[in-house]
Amino acid sequence: MRQAGRYLPEYRQTREKAGSFMGLATNKDYATEVTLQPLDRYRLDAAILFSDILTVPDAMGLGLSFAQGEGPRFEKVVRDEAAVAALQVPDLNKLKYVFDAVSSIRQALKGRVPLIGFSGSPWTLACYMVEGAGSDDYRHVKSLMYSRPDLMHRILEVNAQAVAAYLNAQIDAGAQAVMIFDSWGGVLADGAFQQFSLKYTAQVLSKLKRAADGQTIPRLVFTKGGGPWLSEMNALDCEVLGLDWTMNLGRARALVGGDVGGPGKALQGNIDPHVLFAPPAQIEQEVRRVLDSFGKPHTDPVRTGPTHIFNLGHGIHQLTPPEHVTALIEAVHSHSRAQRNVKIV
Amino acid sequence: MRQAGRYLPEYRQTREKAGSFMGLATNKDYATEVTLQPLDRYRLDAAILFSDILTVPDAMGLGLSFAQGEGPRFEKVVRDEAAVAALQVPDLNKLKYVFDAVSSIRQALKGRVPLIGFSGSPWTLACYMVEGAGSDDYRHVKSLMYSRPDLMHRILEVNAQAVAAYLNAQIDAGAQAVMIFDSWGGVLADGAFQQFSLKYTAQVLSKLKRAADGQTIPRLVFTKGGGPWLSEMNALDCEVLGLDWTMNLGRARALVGGDVGGPGKALQGNIDPHVLFAPPAQIEQEVRRVLDSFGKPHTDPVRTGPTHIFNLGHGIHQLTPPEHVTALIEAVHSHSRAQRNVKIV
Repeated sequence: MRQAGRYLPEYRQTREKAGSFMGLATNKDYATEVTLQPLDRYRLDAAILFSDILTVPDAMGLGLSFAQGEGPRFEKVVRDEAAVAALQVPDLNKLKYVFDAVSSIRQALKGRVPLIGFSGSPWTLACYMVEGAGSDDYRHVKSLMYSRPDLMHRILEVNAQAVAAYLNAQIDAGAQAVMIFDSWGGVLADGAFQQFSLKYTAQVLSKLKRAADGQTIPRLVFTKGGGPWLSEMNALDCEVLGLDWTMNLGRARALVGGDVGGPGKALQGNIDPHVLFAPPAQIEQEVRRVLDSFGKPHTDPVRTGPTHIFNLGHGIHQLTPPEHVTALIEAVHSHSRAQRNVKIV
Repeated sequence: MRQAGRYLPEYRQTREKAGSFMGLATNKDYATEVTLQPLDRYRLDAAILFSDILTVPDAMGLGLSFAQGEGPRFEKVVRDEAAVAALQVPDLNKLKYVFDAVSSIRQALKGRVPLIGFSGSPWTLACYMVEGAGSDDYRHVKSLMYSRPDLMHRILEVNAQAVAAYLNAQIDAGAQAVMIFDSWGGVLADGAFQQFSLKYTAQVLSKLKRAADGQTIPRLVFTKGGGPWLSEMNALDCEVLGLDWTMNLGRARALVGGDVGGPGKALQGNIDPHVLFAPPAQIEQEVRRVLDSFGKPHTDPVRTGPTHIFNLGHGIHQLTPPEHVTALIEAVHSHSRAQRNVKIV
C-alpha cells in the first residue's frame, strides 16, 4: 500500500509546497522526497513509488484532477461507442514524470531497500474511466459491462496493453518489483470477475519483463475483496498475492501457499488498517494474530524468497496517528523475529 | 431484499402522501400498501415487510431520521462508556407500528404468498449506532471495537436481545419467516467477524420462536461480503443463507448445501442488481447463468423445502427500470420450470 500520505506531517508539508496532489506526483523531486519520508520514520523493508493509479487514463487524455477534500475526477468519461473507439494506448512520453521519479527514487535509496513500482489493474482503471470518479454504486461501469460487453472488452484490452507498457517502463527506470492494484475487482459478480478483471490482469502479467540487470522482478497482485476467487488467482503468473483483511491467512496459505507441491505464492497482508486507531497494546495483539494466522514460515530448503510479507490489508486512513504505525512495525519485527523471512512493506 | 422502493412509481406516490420515509414506515396502512405493490406488478413467491433495519436503535431512543436524498442519520451516537451504559433493550411498545403493519399485511395478503419479517443483525445495527449514519470508512465503530472490545460486546449483547424480541414479536404478529440482514458484516476482518458479528447472529437465532400456529418459521441470514466465512456460517441454526453476487452458487452449495450428508442450508441469491440496467436479452442470459451455477435442485426424497431461492444479491437501485424487473422474474420462471423447487422472492 502507499506508505506516504496525509497521515504524515512531513508529507503534508511537501504537499503544501507542491500546491496540488498532481503537482506533487508529477515532480520527480517531490515524489522522491515523499517516497523516502516513511523510510526515514519507520523500519520498513521496501519502498513503494509515490504516484497514483490514475496516471495511465490521465495520459490517455481523460484529464485527471483532485479537488480539495474529494477523490479523483476525470474531465472526460468513456461511456459510449465513440469514446471507446477513440481510446488508445498512451504515448509513454506523457508518463515520463513517473519514470523519472522511479529513477530518482532508486538513486536516492542507494540500495537501502528495494523499490516497488505499481499500476492499477485494467478493470480498476476502467471503473474510473467509465464512472468519471470514484463510485459507491458502479452503475455506469456495470451497466456498460452488462449491456455492451464488447465495448468493455475493448477498453480492457487497451488498458492491459497500456498497463504492461507502463510497468515495463517502470522496470526499465529502476523498479525492482511491480504491483498491480485491482482495487475494484471485488465489486464484480462471480463470472464477471473472471471475464472482466482476472483475464486482463493475466494479460498484463504475460507481457511483463521478468528481469532487469540480471535480477528477477517479482510481480505482486492485490485484489480488494478478491477472497472468493483466491484459488483462481493461484493460476496467475505472479509471485505474490496481496490479501485484504477479510481473508484468513492460514486458509489462504492452504489454498495457494504451495505448502503441498509447486512453488505456490507468497502472501502479502493483511491487517485491518483501522487497528491503527487502537492503543499500542491492542495493535500488538492484532499483529500477533495476523502473524500467527499465517503460521510458521515454510521450511522447505528449495523454496526461496519470502512466504509472508506483512502489510496492511488496504490503504492507511488519513487520521491515523503516525506513532501507532511505529507501534505496529515494531510489533511485527519483535513477534516475527522467530519467524524467518517475514518482510515488512 | 426489500421489494418496494423508489424505482416503482406507485411507491413514490405513496411515499409522497406519507410525507417522509418514517411517515411511511410507521403507518400500517401505508406500509401495507407499499408491501403489496410489488406483488401486484410481479410474479413473486413471497412478500417482505416494508420497514427499515434501523427501527430498533430508533426505539432505543437514538432518534432516527432520513434527510431528503441522504441515508439514515441518528441524533445521538453511542461512542463512549456513558452512552454504552445507558443502552437498553427497547420497550417493544415503541415498535408497535411494525407489528401492526405485519398483522395488517398478513391479513391483506389473504394467503396469496407467505410474509417475511426482518431485522438488522446486532453488528449491523451497532455500525449505525456508533457511526451515527452510513459510513465509507467505519472509523468510529472499528476504533471502538479494537480499542474497547468490552464496550462493543455490551452494545452487541443488548442488540442481540433486542433483535430476538423484535423478530419474535413479528412472528407473533403473523410473519411466516424471518430474515436477519448483516449488511455490514463484510467490513470486518477475519477473526473480528466471528467474534463481533457471527456470534451475536447466532445468539439471536438461539432465542427465536421455531413455530407459530403449528407452522415452522424458517430463518434466513444474509451477510453482505460474507463469502470468506461461508463454512463457518454453516454452523448457524438457520434454514437459509443469503449470498451476495461475488459467491459462486455451485461452490457455496458444495460447502453448505448439504448435498453430502446432513440437511444443509438452502441458498438464497445472488444476481448482481446492476444486471437490471442491461437490456432484457442480457438480463435473461445472466439469470440463466445464476440458475445454472447452482445446478439442478436436490433430488433427495427426504429433503423438503426449497434448495435455491432466486433473489438479488443485494438491494435494488432506485434508477432501475421496473419493466426490467419483469424481464428478470419472467426469465427465472421460464428457465427454472425444469428445476423443481426454485422459489422467487
